[in-house]
Amino acid sequence: MKHSNVEHEKLRNTVIGTSVKRTDLLDKVTGAAQFTADIPLPNLLYGRIKRSNVAHALIKRIDTSRALALPGVKAVLTHENVPRVLHAGSPHPRSASCTKDQYILDNKVRYWGDGVAAVAATTEEIAEEALELIDVEYEELPGLFTVEEAMHPDAPLIHDREPGGNLVLPPVTFARGDIDKGFAEADIIIEGEYEGGRPTPAYMEPNAISCQWDANGNLTVWISTQTSFMVRGIMAEVLGLPLHKVRVLVDHMGGGFGAKQDLYQGEFLCALLAKETRRPVRVEYTREETFLAGRSRHPVKTWLKQGFKKDGTITARQATMVFNSGAYGSHGPGVTNVGTSGLLSLYRCDNIHLEGKCVYTNSPIAGAYRGFGVVQAYYALDIQMDEAAVKLGLDPAEIRLKNAVREGDIAPSEHPVIGHGLEDCLTTGVKLVDWQALRKRPRDTTGPIRKGWGIGCEMHGSSAYPGIKEQGNAIVKMNEDGSAVLLTGTAGLGTGAHTALAQIVAEELGIKFEDVSVVHGDTDIVPWDIGAFASHTTFMGGRVSQMAAAEVKRQLLERAAKILETEPETLEVSLGVISTPDGRTLTVREAVAPTLGVPAPQFVGSATYHPTKSYSFAAHFVEVSVDTETGFVTVDQVVPVHEIGKVIHPVAAAGQIEGGIQQGIGHTLYEDYQIDLKTGRSLNANFVDYKMPLSMDMPPIHTKILETAPDPGGPFGAKGVGEDPIVAIGPAIANAIYDAIGVRFRHYPIKPEEVLAALESQTA
Amino acid sequence: MKHSNVEHEKLRNTVIGTSVKRTDLLDKVTGAAQFTADIPLPNLLYGRIKRSNVAHALIKRIDTSRALALPGVKAVLTHENVPRVLHAGSPHPRSASCTKDQYILDNKVRYWGDGVAAVAATTEEIAEEALELIDVEYEELPGLFTVEEAMHPDAPLIHDREPGGNLVLPPVTFARGDIDKGFAEADIIIEGEYEGGRPTPAYMEPNAISCQWDANGNLTVWISTQTSFMVRGIMAEVLGLPLHKVRVLVDHMGGGFGAKQDLYQGEFLCALLAKETRRPVRVEYTREETFLAGRSRHPVKTWLKQGFKKDGTITARQATMVFNSGAYGSHGPGVTNVGTSGLLSLYRCDNIHLEGKCVYTNSPIAGAYRGFGVVQAYYALDIQMDEAAVKLGLDPAEIRLKNAVREGDIAPSEHPVIGHGLEDCLTTGVKLVDWQALRKRPRDTTGPIRKGWGIGCEMHGSSAYPGIKEQGNAIVKMNEDGSAVLLTGTAGLGTGAHTALAQIVAEELGIKFEDVSVVHGDTDIVPWDIGAFASHTTFMGGRVSQMAAAEVKRQLLERAAKILETEPETLEVSLGVISTPDGRTLTVREAVAPTLGVPAPQFVGSATYHPTKSYSFAAHFVEVSVDTETGFVTVDQVVPVHEIGKVIHPVAAAGQIEGGIQQGIGHTLYEDYQIDLKTGRSLNANFVDYKMPLSMDMPPIHTKILETAPDPGGPFGAKGVGEDPIVAIGPAIANAIYDAIGVRFRHYPIKPEEVLAALESQTA
Repeated sequence: MKHSNVEHEKLRNTVIGTSVKRTDLLDKVTGAAQFTADIPLPNLLYGRIKRSNVAHALIKRIDTSRALALPGVKAVLTHENVPRVLHAGSPHPRSASCTKDQYILDNKVRYWGDGVAAVAATTEEIAEEALELIDVEYEELPGLFTVEEAMHPDAPLIHDREPGGNLVLPPVTFARGDIDKGFAEADIIIEGEYEGGRPTPAYMEPNAISCQWDANGNLTVWISTQTSFMVRGIMAEVLGLPLHKVRVLVDHMGGGFGAKQDLYQGEFLCALLAKETRRPVRVEYTREETFLAGRSRHPVKTWLKQGFKKDGTITARQATMVFNSGAYGSHGPGVTNVGTSGLLSLYRCDNIHLEGKCVYTNSPIAGAYRGFGVVQAYYALDIQMDEAAVKLGLDPAEIRLKNAVREGDIAPSEHPVIGHGLEDCLTTGVKLVDWQALRKRPRDTTGPIRKGWGIGCEMHGSSAYPGIKEQGNAIVKMNEDGSAVLLTGTAGLGTGAHTALAQIVAEELGIKFEDVSVVHGDTDIVPWDIGAFASHTTFMGGRVSQMAAAEVKRQLLERAAKILETEPETLEVSLGVISTPDGRTLTVREAVAPTLGVPAPQFVGSATYHPTKSYSFAAHFVEVSVDTETGFVTVDQVVPVHEIGKVIHPVAAAGQIEGGIQQGIGHTLYEDYQIDLKTGRSLNANFVDYKMPLSMDMPPIHTKILETAPDPGGPFGAKGVGEDPIVAIGPAIANAIYDAIGVRFRHYPIKPEEVLAALESQTA
Repeated sequence: MKHSNVEHEKLRNTVIGTSVKRTDLLDKVTGAAQFTADIPLPNLLYGRIKRSNVAHALIKRIDTSRALALPGVKAVLTHENVPRVLHAGSPHPRSASCTKDQYILDNKVRYWGDGVAAVAATTEEIAEEALELIDVEYEELPGLFTVEEAMHPDAPLIHDREPGGNLVLPPVTFARGDIDKGFAEADIIIEGEYEGGRPTPAYMEPNAISCQWDANGNLTVWISTQTSFMVRGIMAEVLGLPLHKVRVLVDHMGGGFGAKQDLYQGEFLCALLAKETRRPVRVEYTREETFLAGRSRHPVKTWLKQGFKKDGTITARQATMVFNSGAYGSHGPGVTNVGTSGLLSLYRCDNIHLEGKCVYTNSPIAGAYRGFGVVQAYYALDIQMDEAAVKLGLDPAEIRLKNAVREGDIAPSEHPVIGHGLEDCLTTGVKLVDWQALRKRPRDTTGPIRKGWGIGCEMHGSSAYPGIKEQGNAIVKMNEDGSAVLLTGTAGLGTGAHTALAQIVAEELGIKFEDVSVVHGDTDIVPWDIGAFASHTTFMGGRVSQMAAAEVKRQLLERAAKILETEPETLEVSLGVISTPDGRTLTVREAVAPTLGVPAPQFVGSATYHPTKSYSFAAHFVEVSVDTETGFVTVDQVVPVHEIGKVIHPVAAAGQIEGGIQQGIGHTLYEDYQIDLKTGRSLNANFVDYKMPLSMDMPPIHTKILETAPDPGGPFGAKGVGEDPIVAIGPAIANAIYDAIGVRFRHYPIKPEEVLAALESQTA
């Protein structure tokens, strides 16, 4: 008798949904894991980059003779002896032509810290000393540090390219319905300006790359990157090589958070130094360089205006977002599109008009960073929802539930939303924290510590579709003992992605988790992959791995059926055992073992998957304490409720949520990478002056994960969870501060001195 | 208009048949190629093995305390603290149970040089010193150094196992027809004893292995091996690990010639030392150890009797071959079967009875070595053919042609022979050297230098079928620029195998050779492979690579047909250009590039191939000079004619032939690894006392390759060429010596002192 569908589903879920031990766990806790800079390369040279100490200037003269004369220096590169190829440091902008605005080295510097020369030497100390011996004569140009300065009609051009002025791309607009009609129907209109600072991803592992050329002109690249195939493509293009002559290797990574999608300058310089010296060269950024030359979140100014009916219904929404791209375009086009269009959704509205701009300035480069424009957009939107609730005398939870995006609504990706994830998150959170009781609780309005609760919401797409046409690929092969190997191009940033993929393959094949290994991080070997970003690794990489495993299972069961003298479709396979409806069994190992002296064929499955997008949802309920004497805000607890479809690895998913909240608390209350607005000089490019929340600063987090709206596009219904948690936490904190002290902050980070000043002007 | 088949074939052969630059060439000539012992591993320990100085003994006591006390010594292993698992050092014996006769370390030693302990230390010098500090007390047993001693009914048992006595396996027999009837029909009967010495493969790169365990208990093995998946399988079995926890990595190799199919003792000891010390350990054999503990060709004694008609027709053949396996079984069963059954063929005969025995002795271990038993068998057979020609007054070429195996004859693999390769080789060689004129030339019978010509013949199967059920696997994937990657498990011993595979893939895909790269040597990644041996790499590995490439081509042309709005089957693809019958073209790069923003799917093809066997043929014509004053034999020239089906890379094929001839000259005239027949002590385990022909010793070789009998089982009709050349050269030299001085030698090596002694007894 065939199992019913329900039983069958139960039988299958033996591996997914359980928090198996991560495959990289023991290597990491024992220190055995090798990160890029740990890879031993005999005869290694050390590459270092000389950086400008002016923000905007032409290089009049550059003299490397003293550096070259230093014993131990093997090569010095400047704009005068590197190929002059225009490239996009960002691998996959929405418009490929848009951000081709970087040279390996240019005769112009565009921000304080721009690379002007590179050295390879036998020790790091000699390389560092050689940098000091390079003489650069600059002709300074006026520095443009704010978007207002840069958008001034008389501003000098930072780049001489389309669309002109200092715009990275032509302004983007998104519109729906009739905003004039919408605002006319409103009972109240709320309008405000919202601002976001410059947090940086501050990954623990600084950027590192080693390059080695072989005698055939093949280039091997060891690099800490999220996008190994993009690195391969751009390196090949810039260096003038066919793709298969560039091999990119990535193993363990200490974070990336979006910034490690970009190629900075060091990568090309490393390759060229290695070519010139015919020796392997490593370029490892210092912590300071990860600030100077890294990628921050785009500072933003958002003007947002919405009309509301008395019952809270939104009648119109109008917004302008201006993103500060810094000296180069990087992911500016993508962030501008995704961030601005984010305001099409989360809370339903029929009449919308949105405009987004992205502006070059002589500031540090902004790029991709977890949340990718949506952090900025929903910070404004979700604070304004709170403002509306106050003005209309509504419950902040109720106004959100009334407007929450729901099944069938058209998402920013122009897809109908599946399920009621946001409503589920809100109603679950309301119950969990007993929101109604909190609203009615007695409040201490006299002591120095004032407490408040706030809500922030979020929806986030898994995959970058439609901005990028996504594609996932996977190959699964079965060993002759019934264990399996997944070949995937998906990078593991340290999130446990490969563990989840192994679970998915094990589940689909019906073998044990321990019997799946994952091969990744070698572009010569694994199938093409677009990279690890856009919360799509489990969603897309997982789904295509499942598809490839399904093909192997088909081959496996076909052979098993022959041995068992039955039809393949009658067979079940679970935890390594194949069974017939009449109870006969055969292990997977037996099914692949040589039979009658003939080895089983090599079972191999490969699959390609072009996903569109799925949306995950979250509502964060946050309690804060505001110290009215110091202005210091403490997050007391967070109750994040996330709807992410089928959960593959609960602990890893919770880890993503906790990490996102940590970074979100950071940018909302502390983190801001600052420059001097007169000179462009970096002010806090280190972990002493740039304050991040540490583990001891973290509040209790009571995570609740829902599986109420699985997406058929993901493996077993799974969706992404990488980016959601960093978004909702910000406005939830700002709203909780308002709840505590009645002061409305519309920017981040909200600093103690600002809280104090606001409290003082409140009482004045 | 569709191309005709002939034109089509012409169009296709753009890459194969040309001697492209080998992919490993520049790395090797510049010294950049990393061999196993070159792989840098931080924190490495050095492993060394203590070897017995008695040939047959029980270990009464072994004291490691002084060694362990030596600073820098991190671990010492003896039979008392390693797992006691019986294993077959040889990965794929004909009968798996047959040669499971080795322990990692045993309490008994079976030959002079058997490993008794292992040390890991911080330097090689300390490890070496520690070996001296290990005290071993032996209880000696009688040593059995010859097969006669070992087969004596009262001989002590070297191993206590089936089939009993000192036989490695029960005697094998092969029979056909009725030998009594055959001998009765003969006009003459010739009977003789033939003997082969103990040449060793003497690969330039000594055996090397490094092992490293990670925190998850995964073992990574870097090793110079021909059979990485067999290493994985045996290591996993002996160490009690699932297959996917053992990763075997091989890159460049400095030869193997069959011997690097075996796992010696060092591999397991290296893994165990690394486990015990939790550090990477390398065991690199010294040159002496490659003799002591390596694998030689089986010394053999062959008794051969044949009946002939006056016209040279063979009426009956009877033989007994006794192979000396040395202390362990290794490939003894395979060599005994393949060698003995080789006498079923080459020269046709309806009445045959053959017996083969393989005997343990307390001698160095014999194993797989290029030619695999056939060297020994055909040495006897082809000398006896010459004896028959002399006795019957026939031309040695004519008697061979009369009896040469031909199309439809049943080969030792029980397959009908395809084509007339042996006849083609003989007739071509006869013409090339003008054999008839040579036969009639005036001879100098007075001077000290006597010249002679001889012929030797050979047929050799590509693949070890039916002894082993063979299987080849390949995966081909196409990059997004139209270049392709072949994933193959086939090892590259240094023969250019991967270059040939890349040619085959390029040819089948219709792209340029430069656009194919080959990934190999990592068992986690590439599909399963049986290993590089049995002349099957190009035949089987090439054919299955072609099959996988054909699948990718199918996917490619399907997409191209959509773009070109035509049917896939009408398209041609050559050198990267796809063309329609009406002359429209599209490059492969264009066909895989994103179209309308949608990337092409990842084109992946995988294939499994179970070959049977193909036969290649050769006839060697050799001229020698015998110095009657010194007894020294010089090979003046060799004209090797080989029929190997379609030639993929002419220079690499010629290189195989020249290398085989060099090794064949070696074992026929110089090479013999010797032991003291009283103690078993090794006498010439070094390159000073073991004489090999060097490049300056080599005669001119005028290679002629024929493509007259392509095999449909090989890629584009290609067959193997790895082993043939080492076989035919031996009897050709012996026959040439007879032609020069009228002395018939029936053994190898034929040493100057033996030549002198024979000349003296001739004149006496």
